[in-house]
Amino acid sequence: MRQIESVCIAGAGAIGSLFAGHLGCIRPTRVLTRRAEHAQRLNSEGLRVSGKSERQAEILAATDPAKLGDVDLVIIATKATAVEATAQALAGHFPGALVMTVQNGLGCEDVVARYGDWPIISAVTFMSGVRHSDVHVEYELDTETWMGPWAGGSASFADVQQVAKLINASGLKARAFEDLRPAQWSKLLFNSSVNSIGAVTDLPHVREFARRDSIEALGHLVYDMMAEGKRVAATLGIELYEDPWEMNVQAVSRGSTGDEAYAHVFSMLDDVRHRRPTEVDWLTGAVVREAQRVGVPVPIHETMYRLVKARELSWRLDGKQGEEGSGT
Amino acid sequence: MRQIESVCIAGAGAIGSLFAGHLGCIRPTRVLTRRAEHAQRLNSEGLRVSGKSERQAEILAATDPAKLGDVDLVIIATKATAVEATAQALAGHFPGALVMTVQNGLGCEDVVARYGDWPIISAVTFMSGVRHSDVHVEYELDTETWMGPWAGGSASFADVQQVAKLINASGLKARAFEDLRPAQWSKLLFNSSVNSIGAVTDLPHVREFARRDSIEALGHLVYDMMAEGKRVAATLGIELYEDPWEMNVQAVSRGSTGDEAYAHVFSMLDDVRHRRPTEVDWLTGAVVREAQRVGVPVPIHETMYRLVKARELSWRLDGKQGEEGSGT
Repeated sequence: MRQIESVCIAGAGAIGSLFAGHLGCIRPTRVLTRRAEHAQRLNSEGLRVSGKSERQAEILAATDPAKLGDVDLVIIATKATAVEATAQALAGHFPGALVMTVQNGLGCEDVVARYGDWPIISAVTFMSGVRHSDVHVEYELDTETWMGPWAGGSASFADVQQVAKLINASGLKARAFEDLRPAQWSKLLFNSSVNSIGAVTDLPHVREFARRDSIEALGHLVYDMMAEGKRVAATLGIELYEDPWEMNVQAVSRGSTGDEAYAHVFSMLDDVRHRRPTEVDWLTGAVVREAQRVGVPVPIHETMYRLVKARELSWRLDGKQGEEGSGT
Repeated sequence: MRQIESVCIAGAGAIGSLFAGHLGCIRPTRVLTRRAEHAQRLNSEGLRVSGKSERQAEILAATDPAKLGDVDLVIIATKATAVEATAQALAGHFPGALVMTVQNGLGCEDVVARYGDWPIISAVTFMSGVRHSDVHVEYELDTETWMGPWAGGSASFADVQQVAKLINASGLKARAFEDLRPAQWSKLLFNSSVNSIGAVTDLPHVREFARRDSIEALGHLVYDMMAEGKRVAATLGIELYEDPWEMNVQAVSRGSTGDEAYAHVFSMLDDVRHRRPTEVDWLTGAVVREAQRVGVPVPIHETMYRLVKARELSWRLDGKQGEEGSGT
């Protein structure tokens, strides 16, 4: 049985910091950061967790994996858009480690596998946090992280169980699945729809996402888009763990007690507002590619994918636009 | 034969001002404005046209149609969003007049007909102007206005020919059609697609609207959306005057000589940027309603219609949004 004596978290945003802050209290924990200043502060001050749990972890951090020694588990916790660069940095390091990806959407495991022959664990996380500083993260939603062996690699279910056990021991919540795809696809279909719709309408997750009382009501779009995605999953033989439409209805009933002020701002909308590249290629784009591969028509996914890519393009053209005439 | 001795233009935006400035030099011309100050300036200074033609017209303007006497022709030149209020103001006035609508999209004639039994002429205009002030408009694109008898009313083709003759005599360009629908639908399908896509991507009419070189390329969306619209037109028995995809390709090749700075900013995008209600109900929404009536599936039109309506909704919720977490 594989023993996990030490870990490395690659990427210390909100999710990475939650893993590092908890695991750092029970195992020697390294953090690979992008910024040198971030690594320095973690080395001198450690990492604090507040909110749903209280932790103060010692951390060994660096921007170069060569300075972190070997570990038994690497968790890649960057955004999907940064996985390629992270995997490139990890190439040739941590030869004995399991590598776990926790990005939104599909396709990050394939990217990682191109840079090393680590056994790979797929994961999706439902927890959330707010990063107050480089050395302080607030644990907000204490929901589970789900994980399973990636079908394209050599990780076993026993490996996954070991990792889930360790994460549970640290005070976070984890669950091991022999086949993660039913859970992964439930979350994928939820996110590929609501995230892309939020990104182009500038709406957070308000009640209108579940309203279907008129022809122009937004809930029709969410429902029809998820129905497309469910046809793709069914064609792939994936039985969904949870119905994405029910996830949507539950999320907006939870969030809005008559007050829109606390509606969840999707990460893709947050990216659009800050003009950062979005994860649309791994979400809506991933569904489009899978649909094309199995021959299922998904006109709404194609539409949303192209709109978000075009919205990203608009930032590059910005400042170069003119001429507001009348007419069309 | 009906003689047109005097005219009234309702709404003096760019298009209304172009009609008033030209017709005002050959016929007694009244202008119905929304703002009293606008009417006062027109009465004291007249209306100047520069650019493709040079005119200085005397105008009798007012905010109340009762102060404008009777006329033989009323041209309603407001945006589609203001037609209902304008028709309401006109009710009971100008009993002997022909009324012509020149809005984008479908459905304004029905609105006007609810407020009076005037013979109604449908028109679509391809000209454009820039309104520099209440009393000065620049004539930019000197393209034609096309008109035909509205099928739901009593205007004859001879009436339409008289109006077209008068407009041509004024220095603008007009063409009379026995059946306007082929031209109206060509423009409708062009605008319902490119305007709604521009509105949610924040893109003016750049070359990407015609690019189809990758799965995420925006041209695929424009093409597929127009193909949907063409199926609706075909089912209605309307043979298009011009292919909307060709209109799109020509427009972006004209506009972009390697420089995106002069790409046309769609009126719907201009509305979104200024947070004004858009004309989407008369464009994309009109195609959705017609498609539903004749049973043609239009998932892309439904998607774009719902997205633009949701974008309008986002302004009403603005300032009430919070909580940018991580996670989804």
